[in-house]
Amino acid sequence: MQFELTREYIDDLKKLIDQKNETEAKAKVEHLHAADIADILDELNTEEAKYIFLLLDADTGADVLSEIEEDDRKRFIKVLPIEVIAKKFIDHMDSDDAADLIGGLSDEKQEELLSHIEDVETAGDIVDLLHYDEDTAGGLMGKELVIVNENWTVLTCLRELSRQAEDIDEIYYVYVVNDDGKLIGTLSLKKMILSPTSAKIGNIYEPDVMSVHTDESDEEVALIMEKYDLVALPVVDSIGRLMGRITIDDVVDVIRDEAEKDYQMASGIYEDIESNDSIWLQTRARLPWLLIGLVGGIFAAMVIATHETGLSATPALAFFIPLITAMAGNVGVQSSAIIVQGIASNSLGIESTFSRLMRELGGALINGLTCSSLLFLSNYFYSDSFALTISVSVALFAVMIFAAIAGTIIPLMLHRAKVDPALATGPFITTLNDIVGLFIYLSIGAYFYSMI
Amino acid sequence: MQFELTREYIDDLKKLIDQKNETEAKAKVEHLHAADIADILDELNTEEAKYIFLLLDADTGADVLSEIEEDDRKRFIKVLPIEVIAKKFIDHMDSDDAADLIGGLSDEKQEELLSHIEDVETAGDIVDLLHYDEDTAGGLMGKELVIVNENWTVLTCLRELSRQAEDIDEIYYVYVVNDDGKLIGTLSLKKMILSPTSAKIGNIYEPDVMSVHTDESDEEVALIMEKYDLVALPVVDSIGRLMGRITIDDVVDVIRDEAEKDYQMASGIYEDIESNDSIWLQTRARLPWLLIGLVGGIFAAMVIATHETGLSATPALAFFIPLITAMAGNVGVQSSAIIVQGIASNSLGIESTFSRLMRELGGALINGLTCSSLLFLSNYFYSDSFALTISVSVALFAVMIFAAIAGTIIPLMLHRAKVDPALATGPFITTLNDIVGLFIYLSIGAYFYSMI
Repeated sequence: MQFELTREYIDDLKKLIDQKNETEAKAKVEHLHAADIADILDELNTEEAKYIFLLLDADTGADVLSEIEEDDRKRFIKVLPIEVIAKKFIDHMDSDDAADLIGGLSDEKQEELLSHIEDVETAGDIVDLLHYDEDTAGGLMGKELVIVNENWTVLTCLRELSRQAEDIDEIYYVYVVNDDGKLIGTLSLKKMILSPTSAKIGNIYEPDVMSVHTDESDEEVALIMEKYDLVALPVVDSIGRLMGRITIDDVVDVIRDEAEKDYQMASGIYEDIESNDSIWLQTRARLPWLLIGLVGGIFAAMVIATHETGLSATPALAFFIPLITAMAGNVGVQSSAIIVQGIASNSLGIESTFSRLMRELGGALINGLTCSSLLFLSNYFYSDSFALTISVSVALFAVMIFAAIAGTIIPLMLHRAKVDPALATGPFITTLNDIVGLFIYLSIGAYFYSMI
Repeated sequence: MQFELTREYIDDLKKLIDQKNETEAKAKVEHLHAADIADILDELNTEEAKYIFLLLDADTGADVLSEIEEDDRKRFIKVLPIEVIAKKFIDHMDSDDAADLIGGLSDEKQEELLSHIEDVETAGDIVDLLHYDEDTAGGLMGKELVIVNENWTVLTCLRELSRQAEDIDEIYYVYVVNDDGKLIGTLSLKKMILSPTSAKIGNIYEPDVMSVHTDESDEEVALIMEKYDLVALPVVDSIGRLMGRITIDDVVDVIRDEAEKDYQMASGIYEDIESNDSIWLQTRARLPWLLIGLVGGIFAAMVIATHETGLSATPALAFFIPLITAMAGNVGVQSSAIIVQGIASNSLGIESTFSRLMRELGGALINGLTCSSLLFLSNYFYSDSFALTISVSVALFAVMIFAAIAGTIIPLMLHRAKVDPALATGPFITTLNDIVGLFIYLSIGAYFYSMI
């Protein structure tokens, strides 16, 4: 039932394109789902992709255009005549997908494209949607709604439904508005089917309806739909008028993107990149973090250099530098990951920063004591310097406590300052912990060596 | 419209519980969404939560039981009489949620609970679902389906719908089966409403239906629903008979869990934990990775110790140990994150391992050359030892190339060996890169110092 993309499939298709064998090339793709065709186009070069794309019927083409990745989409739109895009595809797209597509064009191209759309209502919807910020509920929503008035009967509704539903693929909810256009509730299709046709909507609709304002952030929208298990969420303006609806499939992407973004930030990858992106794109996303690490490393070198005399006297202190920095990094990354994920999934609850910090500190005590005791035992038996043994263990303990505190407090503070807390994960926190950890370690080492 | 949980709200509620003020306590929670009530119970102790829980009506209580976190759910079920759970709540739950709940009990308790369920059909559905592995399509699916036969008319369908739909909250699709119970297609409610009542289902249904086998993994299910923008996905047995359906809300959790799990693994957190989990739970999840880091640090110390004579002669070599290990770690984490995310979102495409590695290598060359040139310049001006300057830069370059290769190849190899590639991220790859990086660095250092 599902299509599996293989190297052979792509090679066959490329051969057909090469031979300009329209019939067979078309037969090879037309029965596939738009998402699979989008994957195929991703493996072709621009000319080949354009060839296949123009073989598709308008409906499939529109779906494929919505499914392909943004980079690929831009590549296509450049090589296709703008009139073709407007007439053949935009008309068959959901308004939110159309607005996403058009929003990526230059102002000039936007105007040209809009002028080619024949249906004035569609063009109007798209222009409306272009006003909203991409990362808000307004930017996510589509205009495809089935709206009924509370004063209608079920029979009027069913008639209206046939009219309104023509352009809509799937109806999840029917929204009920009052005479001012304000959203007052929903009506399930099930309820409509099971009610007598003479029933008044005002008597059978469900008044408890969750909605969001057009300005709500996409992450908040995702959290709400996830928490309340919603398939669609209506969007209202500041006086409660129904403006559009957001469907779960758009939100699933936000959820994955958000979770992936946090992981990428923690891994020192700055921009959203895919494993298939070009070397240049990947380098641009990765180099900045590496440079932070580099500067941090140079600072760390300076910290060690200030202890050069001590280190010449007792070179064994240098042995444990990697252990100290690695453990500082590991603890810091763990602590910050827990906070960042808690913030992302909105599961921090109402616990105060103080009690959260105390809990983290409790865990750090257990982990710190365990690790430094084990290290103490290992060094006690294998090292002939007791000063080294005690310095390294005490320092490890101190460094792990510091790293846990920094890893907890810094993301919480950033979050409070409305800065993305994921910034505090990855190279940034690792580098900070390296430098402070080394300072703690070498200071403690100098102290014990002068003592013993 | 949405409820915001505050410390004051919880304090007020606790006071009402303390005063045994049933009426007001009930009034304070009963208008809320089950998901919000679940959040509230999470902030109460077991006795308080039980008190509130028993005030809820059966429907809300069942929804709350499905919404609360697994730990909390177990805590509850322990203190509630098993007969109450069975009679009051299980009957009102979706079969998949009920099976999840019952699956968490001991065999003995399972039997006792099932014996209290009055509706034999419900009990049978739950027993069927208990057979499936939690991480498979069978474990995710529910039995709440609206099924119609291809030989029926729309009128028969509408009648059947009223009967079948009674227990089902929301209908997304109506599934069409043949006389053998095999899934042959779907029928949208929209289509049913818009067709004449005498139309035969066989003539109006949509035969293109995507389905999964009961044994399919939950991650694969999530990828399919995400890719094809599905709200519900039917599940079939090995001969194609319709067994159940999976809804998008269950899959959203799988997607978030999966993305979070990869991030947690990369951060050195072994079990799925929440920011609110107890110190013991968090320690159990974190300590194992820290111990790996500790052992790695001891190995690193040994690597440095073998170069002790060189280090005594030129202690400045020690200055750049943190820089080398940090950069090795950063590059390795970046490379492995890209691969692991590509695997998780199934976006690796059909590119071969070799060409992927070449691309990664290309990026590593650019990043490595940039970083080591900058370090060379910095040391050229600030260090008086040219041997140090050249050693550190050459070593940094070599280490970054090695880390990129290891970070790409190891997760790909694990994936091919059917081991979770996320294992290769985080402390494991950092530790490996630390040790190998140090070895490369100190060997190169020894070489240049003996040369110059």
